[in-house]
Amino acid sequence: MKHYLSINDVDCLPGWVDEAIALKQNPYQFQKLGKHKTICLLFFNNSLRTRLSTQKAAMHLGMEVMVMNFGSEGWVLEYEDGTIMDQGTSEHIKEAAKVVSQYCDIVAIRAFAQLKDKEKDEAEQVLNGFAKFASIPVVNMESSIAHPLQALADAITLKEHETKSRPKVVLSWAPHPKALPHAVANSFVEMMKLQETDFVITHPKGYELNPEITARCTIEYNQQKALENADFVYVKNWSSYINYGQVLSKDLAWTMTREKLGNAKFMHCLPVRRNVVVEDAVLDGNQSLVVEQANNRTFSAQIVLKKILETL
Amino acid sequence: MKHYLSINDVDCLPGWVDEAIALKQNPYQFQKLGKHKTICLLFFNNSLRTRLSTQKAAMHLGMEVMVMNFGSEGWVLEYEDGTIMDQGTSEHIKEAAKVVSQYCDIVAIRAFAQLKDKEKDEAEQVLNGFAKFASIPVVNMESSIAHPLQALADAITLKEHETKSRPKVVLSWAPHPKALPHAVANSFVEMMKLQETDFVITHPKGYELNPEITARCTIEYNQQKALENADFVYVKNWSSYINYGQVLSKDLAWTMTREKLGNAKFMHCLPVRRNVVVEDAVLDGNQSLVVEQANNRTFSAQIVLKKILETL
Amino acid sequence: MKHYLSINDVDCLPGWVDEAIALKQNPYQFQKLGKHKTICLLFFNNSLRTRLSTQKAAMHLGMEVMVMNFGSEGWVLEYEDGTIMDQGTSEHIKEAAKVVSQYCDIVAIRAFAQLKDKEKDEAEQVLNGFAKFASIPVVNMESSIAHPLQALADAITLKEHETKSRPKVVLSWAPHPKALPHAVANSFVEMMKLQETDFVITHPKGYELNPEITARCTIEYNQQKALENADFVYVKNWSSYINYGQVLSKDLAWTMTREKLGNAKFMHCLPVRRNVVVEDAVLDGNQSLVVEQANNRTFSAQIVLKKILETL
Repeated sequence: MKHYLSINDVDCLPGWVDEAIALKQNPYQFQKLGKHKTICLLFFNNSLRTRLSTQKAAMHLGMEVMVMNFGSEGWVLEYEDGTIMDQGTSEHIKEAAKVVSQYCDIVAIRAFAQLKDKEKDEAEQVLNGFAKFASIPVVNMESSIAHPLQALADAITLKEHETKSRPKVVLSWAPHPKALPHAVANSFVEMMKLQETDFVITHPKGYELNPEITARCTIEYNQQKALENADFVYVKNWSSYINYGQVLSKDLAWTMTREKLGNAKFMHCLPVRRNVVVEDAVLDGNQSLVVEQANNRTFSAQIVLKKILETL
Repeated sequence: MKHYLSINDVDCLPGWVDEAIALKQNPYQFQKLGKHKTICLLFFNNSLRTRLSTQKAAMHLGMEVMVMNFGSEGWVLEYEDGTIMDQGTSEHIKEAAKVVSQYCDIVAIRAFAQLKDKEKDEAEQVLNGFAKFASIPVVNMESSIAHPLQALADAITLKEHETKSRPKVVLSWAPHPKALPHAVANSFVEMMKLQETDFVITHPKGYELNPEITARCTIEYNQQKALENADFVYVKNWSSYINYGQVLSKDLAWTMTREKLGNAKFMHCLPVRRNVVVEDAVLDGNQSLVVEQANNRTFSAQIVLKKILETL
Repeated sequence: MKHYLSINDVDCLPGWVDEAIALKQNPYQFQKLGKHKTICLLFFNNSLRTRLSTQKAAMHLGMEVMVMNFGSEGWVLEYEDGTIMDQGTSEHIKEAAKVVSQYCDIVAIRAFAQLKDKEKDEAEQVLNGFAKFASIPVVNMESSIAHPLQALADAITLKEHETKSRPKVVLSWAPHPKALPHAVANSFVEMMKLQETDFVITHPKGYELNPEITARCTIEYNQQKALENADFVYVKNWSSYINYGQVLSKDLAWTMTREKLGNAKFMHCLPVRRNVVVEDAVLDGNQSLVVEQANNRTFSAQIVLKKILETL
């Protein structure tokens, strides 16, 4: 692995999960690995969990950390080839990526989907631009179409809480006032496909994810049926993929409730809109794993950085 | 002490002051105490002194520091219970506080008064929200109604410059073009009440602070009379508390001058509006302690962090 | 040297350049020098290279680093003497500089020209304000009229790539959609004047730099003639100095091309507008030194900080 752009960059998911769980017991045990190594975290969008957990992970490994809000602190980047740059963009990704590579050993990038132009979002201009032109490893801190640090944290959380060998896991769409990207759902689905589980996706019609990603997955439009005998219910909103970036429904009938959840564990990547995505009773109850998921973000980042550091 | 929310969380003010003064002589002596401990500084408002001095204090103690401008870098928080979050707020304080607690050992928070709704400001939504839901100690870096790191720095400064056992200290209101919070004045008054001093508060009528805070304090509406034989004059603007958040007067007759100051030492928390709050001659003269006060911010933060680290 | 405000603060340029090149081989060799020393980077303007390279340099030297975007995170500063501060400014440079000096051992400042008022820009209010009132060394991270860390990096790059003892170096103006400051060009010229080289400046009429800075330099208005037999071509846009801050020409005939460049090495400080300042073929070709220049920013900052640390 040079870059960590997708959950599919993990060569052996169960091995990484076990190693992350071991790291959690003694987070500072590999502190020498990061000595005199620097990571630069570049944020093109807001962040709470990713910002703090990735810093924490790097510090656990003894790395130096530089954090930059690229949008407000840096220059507007150009991504197209051959452009005459006499308009709003000040610096080309070619220079930016090569230059950042001079100052650190790993660069981590957050750049959300714009949800206006599917092709442009799927081109992953920012992430792929850095991956193409940077001379150092690139880590995805949530791009247009993937959030593999979250998916890895989710895999760790599932492992820690599973009570049988082949649990039933349901990914359930939920309503939300705003149009949200598909990144978290995509990477969760991809991660599930790397595991032996009984996995079902449920959402209203029109909310089908990219069919290439959900290939070979069970899709059940009836939420109640999907949730039957679930062990884990991962709830997440996303906007339509077919009617790209549109909000087709805000139907609160899809909100996760304690009653629907049954005996399953509740998962969500956060931030979460209470009483829209999920009712208070679920989040405040003892079946919720959301805080554990957030905690595991540190260790998903740490195992990724450790794997990269070992190659440097 | 679990949290440091108010100057009243100090169990023995003279002891802490003496210990802070000792720390100043050898700031790095307790560097092992903070090893593998992380502090997260969350700013909901601007900051110069607090931002730099609290970082410095944490670094003196060997801690790792993560700084985040919550307003611009994170998500808009919801504080009310039971809200259907389908409007502008993206994340509930319950999740935010629990999540931040996963990534650090101490969280420090700055969140100013809005000065629009007294009840809301006094509820201290942000600070108390974190104190309630975080699983780690919370430090107040200036909240709606208190600035206890400043008050502790002021106590250190008073101690370093006092030349008699029971000095006369005057808190004198000053004019200002904008409506300012009561936090600094409140905590200064509360700190003075923990000491043996001759303490007088002076301000125009209508500028009375919260009477619960000034209970048992001498209030003298005649500034000239209040200043007689003062050893220390602490000057500060605040908006009206009764007519909550209003600017009732910008009367420059209340501006502190060299003449009025007499032989007293001048104190102010900074930033200060020159020739409105206080004339140039005072700030540029040798009776001003404002730079020493700013320097003592490092050591007030350091003693607070040290006390907390000792309990972890 | 107390402060590093101008390239003329370098006492012996060839010596510093050699020392920087040696540092590059073993960047962490002087890590004890910065132990328990803190640098504060204050940005009044955006920055990518300077932000990351100066942090990196300080970390190489074992320093603690605090980064602050003064404009958005701090208070609006007043620079004039005797002002009645009842308008938009909240804190005087006198206090701000003295206060920042309490929290760190070196302060580095970026504050661009406004390009509206020549006299005001040349007064260097921010940089000189800090230099005057701070009690600690001040480093210029690009001020209104100088960018000496860039010029020092350029000197290092020239030295690393020169193949003869007295190379011909050309500073060639280029078009740009926006009005840009003179800082980079000024410091490059001043740096060239400290060296034994064949140095020519070329630009359209009306784009003469400050004549005090270009005194004794060759100015050739014919770009083609200026470029003849050049070994290094440094391309940079700047706005008019005589018609202060104005864009007099956007003539793409001044754009640097592969053809014009001949066998010379291409230099630019970045960020660069592709196909306006310089065509793609130059930046993507093997005569471009721009990434090396960016890399040398770390070592120009590091040699400056090392020299300062040795005096503390």
